[in-house]
Amino acid sequence: MSSSSLVRAAIIGSTGYGGVELIRLLAAHPRVTVTSVVSSSNAGEPFAAGYPHLTEIRTDTLDAVDPALIAGKADVVFFATPHGVSTKLAGDFLAAGLKIIDLSGDFRLKSRETYAQWYKKEAPAQAELDRAVYGMCELFGDEAAGQDFISNPGCFPTATTLGLYPAVKAGWIDPDTIIVDAKTGVSGAGRGLNISSHYAEVNENFKAYKIHQHQHTPEIEQVLARAAGRPVTTSFTTHLVPMTRGIMSTMYASLTDRGRTTADFVELYRQFYEGRKFVRVRQAGTWPATKEVYGSNYCDIGVLADERTGRLTVVSVIDNLVKGASGQAIQNLNLMMGWEETLGLEFVPVYP
Amino acid sequence: MSSSSLVRAAIIGSTGYGGVELIRLLAAHPRVTVTSVVSSSNAGEPFAAGYPHLTEIRTDTLDAVDPALIAGKADVVFFATPHGVSTKLAGDFLAAGLKIIDLSGDFRLKSRETYAQWYKKEAPAQAELDRAVYGMCELFGDEAAGQDFISNPGCFPTATTLGLYPAVKAGWIDPDTIIVDAKTGVSGAGRGLNISSHYAEVNENFKAYKIHQHQHTPEIEQVLARAAGRPVTTSFTTHLVPMTRGIMSTMYASLTDRGRTTADFVELYRQFYEGRKFVRVRQAGTWPATKEVYGSNYCDIGVLADERTGRLTVVSVIDNLVKGASGQAIQNLNLMMGWEETLGLEFVPVYP
Amino acid sequence: MSSSSLVRAAIIGSTGYGGVELIRLLAAHPRVTVTSVVSSSNAGEPFAAGYPHLTEIRTDTLDAVDPALIAGKADVVFFATPHGVSTKLAGDFLAAGLKIIDLSGDFRLKSRETYAQWYKKEAPAQAELDRAVYGMCELFGDEAAGQDFISNPGCFPTATTLGLYPAVKAGWIDPDTIIVDAKTGVSGAGRGLNISSHYAEVNENFKAYKIHQHQHTPEIEQVLARAAGRPVTTSFTTHLVPMTRGIMSTMYASLTDRGRTTADFVELYRQFYEGRKFVRVRQAGTWPATKEVYGSNYCDIGVLADERTGRLTVVSVIDNLVKGASGQAIQNLNLMMGWEETLGLEFVPVYP
Amino acid sequence: MSSSSLVRAAIIGSTGYGGVELIRLLAAHPRVTVTSVVSSSNAGEPFAAGYPHLTEIRTDTLDAVDPALIAGKADVVFFATPHGVSTKLAGDFLAAGLKIIDLSGDFRLKSRETYAQWYKKEAPAQAELDRAVYGMCELFGDEAAGQDFISNPGCFPTATTLGLYPAVKAGWIDPDTIIVDAKTGVSGAGRGLNISSHYAEVNENFKAYKIHQHQHTPEIEQVLARAAGRPVTTSFTTHLVPMTRGIMSTMYASLTDRGRTTADFVELYRQFYEGRKFVRVRQAGTWPATKEVYGSNYCDIGVLADERTGRLTVVSVIDNLVKGASGQAIQNLNLMMGWEETLGLEFVPVYP
Repeated sequence: MSSSSLVRAAIIGSTGYGGVELIRLLAAHPRVTVTSVVSSSNAGEPFAAGYPHLTEIRTDTLDAVDPALIAGKADVVFFATPHGVSTKLAGDFLAAGLKIIDLSGDFRLKSRETYAQWYKKEAPAQAELDRAVYGMCELFGDEAAGQDFISNPGCFPTATTLGLYPAVKAGWIDPDTIIVDAKTGVSGAGRGLNISSHYAEVNENFKAYKIHQHQHTPEIEQVLARAAGRPVTTSFTTHLVPMTRGIMSTMYASLTDRGRTTADFVELYRQFYEGRKFVRVRQAGTWPATKEVYGSNYCDIGVLADERTGRLTVVSVIDNLVKGASGQAIQNLNLMMGWEETLGLEFVPVYP
Repeated sequence: MSSSSLVRAAIIGSTGYGGVELIRLLAAHPRVTVTSVVSSSNAGEPFAAGYPHLTEIRTDTLDAVDPALIAGKADVVFFATPHGVSTKLAGDFLAAGLKIIDLSGDFRLKSRETYAQWYKKEAPAQAELDRAVYGMCELFGDEAAGQDFISNPGCFPTATTLGLYPAVKAGWIDPDTIIVDAKTGVSGAGRGLNISSHYAEVNENFKAYKIHQHQHTPEIEQVLARAAGRPVTTSFTTHLVPMTRGIMSTMYASLTDRGRTTADFVELYRQFYEGRKFVRVRQAGTWPATKEVYGSNYCDIGVLADERTGRLTVVSVIDNLVKGASGQAIQNLNLMMGWEETLGLEFVPVYP
Repeated sequence: MSSSSLVRAAIIGSTGYGGVELIRLLAAHPRVTVTSVVSSSNAGEPFAAGYPHLTEIRTDTLDAVDPALIAGKADVVFFATPHGVSTKLAGDFLAAGLKIIDLSGDFRLKSRETYAQWYKKEAPAQAELDRAVYGMCELFGDEAAGQDFISNPGCFPTATTLGLYPAVKAGWIDPDTIIVDAKTGVSGAGRGLNISSHYAEVNENFKAYKIHQHQHTPEIEQVLARAAGRPVTTSFTTHLVPMTRGIMSTMYASLTDRGRTTADFVELYRQFYEGRKFVRVRQAGTWPATKEVYGSNYCDIGVLADERTGRLTVVSVIDNLVKGASGQAIQNLNLMMGWEETLGLEFVPVYP
Repeated sequence: MSSSSLVRAAIIGSTGYGGVELIRLLAAHPRVTVTSVVSSSNAGEPFAAGYPHLTEIRTDTLDAVDPALIAGKADVVFFATPHGVSTKLAGDFLAAGLKIIDLSGDFRLKSRETYAQWYKKEAPAQAELDRAVYGMCELFGDEAAGQDFISNPGCFPTATTLGLYPAVKAGWIDPDTIIVDAKTGVSGAGRGLNISSHYAEVNENFKAYKIHQHQHTPEIEQVLARAAGRPVTTSFTTHLVPMTRGIMSTMYASLTDRGRTTADFVELYRQFYEGRKFVRVRQAGTWPATKEVYGSNYCDIGVLADERTGRLTVVSVIDNLVKGASGQAIQNLNLMMGWEETLGLEFVPVYP
């Protein structure tokens, strides 16, 4: 393929962890080239100054957030920005003819009221919200093809809903009994400075946070409602693990039929995800660990139906910066463009 | 107090993490002196050879497991041994006139059948089992006074039942809906060599293990049954955190009355634990982290009643080697002897 | 002892890691009570709000930096403040009749020019500088007795000079060849927010910093000059280890006589530190690790004389927050007051 | 390129960390396919059973160590085995017509006496030793072209000699004054079980080991002797860092001309490594950290000439499993085959 046929990508918010992970992943993509790294605060500075691991790999400087400038250099824009930014900017970039993949939470919730309630911000305009397609690839991937505006799912909703969807959809668990106990590495909170990401406070420590208040709760419920065919209310709790990358969601729900075995569930999940290379359903009796997907776009799932308690337990793991953010964003680009969804994403997990 | 009045303690299994933590803690106890460190495999060797942090602190050598020998040197024996050891040895030590505090799981379950089922070993003889008092200090501390044989609780049951007991006892949550999602540091698995405690496998990793199969499950259910006044079945899951010390149990159950608020629960818990210095009930809206009890005998508890989901969430943290093992064992000694339960145990948590 | 006979201590900068470690350690001291926790920025707030591990342990609020107020509540003041603070305040506190132990670097260097050059700040007034006694306990402890103003040594100088002093003093190594390769945990940089203490930047990372520019260099040289009887120039390099606590200095120098063996050096060091309980010289062929002094006031030292290269290697470890800061500060208080130097400081290292 | 033109590789010792890293890296190589994973102890078992991160990536079973069998499936063999294995097996594999890249230490030292002295094993036969080419790519890469037997360098020698060679070669430092203070992550010790790789012993700990006795010492001296044109004796010390991957060598030597500046050295190093993409010489005043090369084949180097002490300090970092083992092994394969040395190895470091 000639280099002129490469899709040109710009990254808004390139100096955050999501942005810099896009750069790592896209460097291996055969049909994309990153032509603009954008920052609202450091325009003009060399990109590698803040990320010395990119010395001699990215020698360019940061661009300002200027839709016209970027439209001249890029075909598609990734927003790897804090909540609230794409709400303001998406319209301008769409108007400039750019495709958008938004990694922030702004366009994920279809209800503007729910957004305002959980994010404590004003929701995007209805017209733009209608245009954004929610890109949970293995669940709704068909909807991405040919679109120009994808809202990339949240990290916790990715691990969680991939882990629950087949069982809810099949009616094998009672959606009203779902409890999600989620754990994440520290990179999920971004590069910003905060006492809760200070090394001496996190290391050799394990803590709960945002119990029943995490803004990913309604996103999870919105996806599960599609599976259940009715509204679902879920208990969702998050914890901070002393590690950099990785999310595990451990999930509990009551079986609708205690006669169903772990083997039945493994079979159900394998059929559901057949042909979707990035979801690996583990064999009965084994459980995935976060490191087993480190640096990769996999979501690994283990299930257990416990006759004694009448409950299903599901363990689902992802790398929060890959499948939970930048990797899935590229997977969405692949789907938008009509390419193989795995293109440029078949990284073997880094182990150990 | 003259040194002749000190209670003399022996530690069986002194070369494990529980044993060595007993040595650290007892070094600060005003009424106890450790006169014998015992090992089944390394008798005759200098204790500090395997634990150089005790250089010039413990200059003695390891004793063999010999009840007669130990009875000549000690008044009380701590078993910090793997499961199955005290089953075999407790009788001999009791017969030799020694008091026993057993940190292993052998004498915790009152049903011999349940023990055999979960521990995959033969249970202790009924006579000795009847003699052993289960020493969950803040719940059943009155039963320890004057006894000569205490079965020290498991680490997970300590964090878990201290976190659930008041709510179950009050009838404010439905015991049939309890789900316990527990997390532990690696020291809980002991010093033995195993791929699952290899640094490169644990570091930057988070994994689930023994889902629905952990031997602490029936111990938790046995305690909760006392609170509920009837049998209780609980979903109990454990995870391994990349840290050395610390346990968190995150617990979920349905409210029996959705009108009860977090403030109601905080008040209930504070009243329940009034006067028990090692349980600290956190104020509404805050959650304890494991590091906040590091190296100390505290169990810190946070609660939240969520009206939206109709569920209670409880977070309970301990240092698994202190309140979850050696610290509570000393607390039990204090209660047996009729001393203040906090004697020699008021360590301020090591932070950061 | 009646509580009225307790020495009352105030801690300026109590909300930093050095301050909070003073609180942990002094809680176990039989002759001291902390009567005032002071903060320049959070006066009036409950101390435990920022440090929940002290819930129910410290229930007081923060005092303002007010010498008159503090003089009414305390006998001795610990400065656990950033560089530059005690330079400004020491005079006022001395004038108010308080004894001072200063954990900052302000009064360590006897040359005001050297201070200005390495600290990039103006040095304290000469009169106060003359009054401050440099408190490296095992080297110059006799000088502290009866004093009212102690300058507590830096963390790196403590590990380093305790490791080198006997060999330099004896003339067994050439002072001009000394190279110090030091490593520290992250708590040494304090609780302030900085990208270099962000968990995701430090974890699974090892970095060098301030090479040949660390402000502890002249302090090390000042101490070694006393041993050598002439000026000494030293190469001093620091590294950041992904851990919270601990310092290791690995030190190299040429032997003045290649015939001297490791055994000779072990003997030299043991004689030099005879009777000083907090320095433990390890036997030949073994090396101390930082965790072996964790949470304690020990400085452990290993030495090796290598005939092949003609060089001595010394490894010296401390807990930077204890022997490297707050523990040594209390040891200095003990010496000032004429108490046993180990009083209240005999913590067994926390292991594992 | 048709798949028939792929070079077929076998990995002996595939279940160790070096072996499994070869699998990760070669999965991205456009001209190599791994056709045989070999294990001396687990032949017949599914490879992914021991490494679940390879679920659905490697579905094959382990082959036995059988030169005839492997010769039928592969063109080149990587030995990722403990010391002593390739000494015994290399001859058989060469005789079977296979090319060899040996990641162990067996064939690195040209002196059989030196090998026996430091490795405490008998050295390989002289004939095979003569045939093995030492593959330090950026220093002696020209020697690899067309060869069929490469001895891949050790991890510490790679970081160390790449960091020192230009300065020694130029005569700008005195080789007799070189001191190397090296630090490594735990994966360097392999997957074998040992108390020194137990998580609770390593975490929050920093330790020195094998001081003056590491078997990489003579390998470093052998390379530096080529630079100096005469024998060199070096002080080499190793430390264990609580992290999984990464090596840093901090190196010290006396300047032969104090007038030479850091800028002079940066220029010298850049010229020396011109065109070698995997060595990145950092700009004056900055230092590489291990995480900045994580998962990649880079060796990043920082230098500082200090006028005050008259010494050069060099900091050199690699990922011990990539540039220090499997990555350089593939780089050597590229050089043997006459391919671009960067082929299939241009991984962007994983950050954070």
